[in-house]
Amino acid sequence: MPYYRHHVFFCVNRRQDGRACCANQHSQEMRDYAKERIKTLGLAGKGGVRVNNAGCMDRCEEGPVMVIYPEGTWYTYVDKEDIDEIIEQHLQRGLSVERLKMKE
Amino acid sequence: MPYYRHHVFFCVNRRQDGRACCANQHSQEMRDYAKERIKTLGLAGKGGVRVNNAGCMDRCEEGPVMVIYPEGTWYTYVDKEDIDEIIEQHLQRGLSVERLKMKE
Repeated sequence: MPYYRHHVFFCVNRRQDGRACCANQHSQEMRDYAKERIKTLGLAGKGGVRVNNAGCMDRCEEGPVMVIYPEGTWYTYVDKEDIDEIIEQHLQRGLSVERLKMKE
Repeated sequence: MPYYRHHVFFCVNRRQDGRACCANQHSQEMRDYAKERIKTLGLAGKGGVRVNNAGCMDRCEEGPVMVIYPEGTWYTYVDKEDIDEIIEQHLQRGLSVERLKMKE
């Protein structure tokens, strides 16, 4: 059994050279929102869901990005409604949110 | 196929309250070393290996910690020799380094 059933990483990197980056698209705010929602829903912790900040995952132009392991599903998102949908569909029900999945 | 064959996250979190944390055990230096070695060995990039900083993964007392996905293998380490062994055994040969694996 994996230590975390779902381990979620949000890129919160801020590039200093003016190029596209996730931090410019309120990724920290969305990560904080996700972490709080997951805690409120009782999903957080060992055997459950862990939400982490991460550095640049090198997909900035497609961002803001998050990845969920061990399944390796990459999502982009715009607002809290998108985050809610990922939480409800993917993290609670185990289904992918096709409209938010990133292309390989 | 996963976007990254191995996605490696190093906890580089620094706790402000004096409790055990990975940053106090030179995790940033070891992460930087791993990233450089992986680049030098030609392993980095899409379809290959990605090394990232991560926030607190909540296993600080067992730290310093790193996790490799999608396989979900958690390691602790002491020095560059340990990092080299993880790179050579796990990331290049696909084998686990049993002596560095964390207990579930």
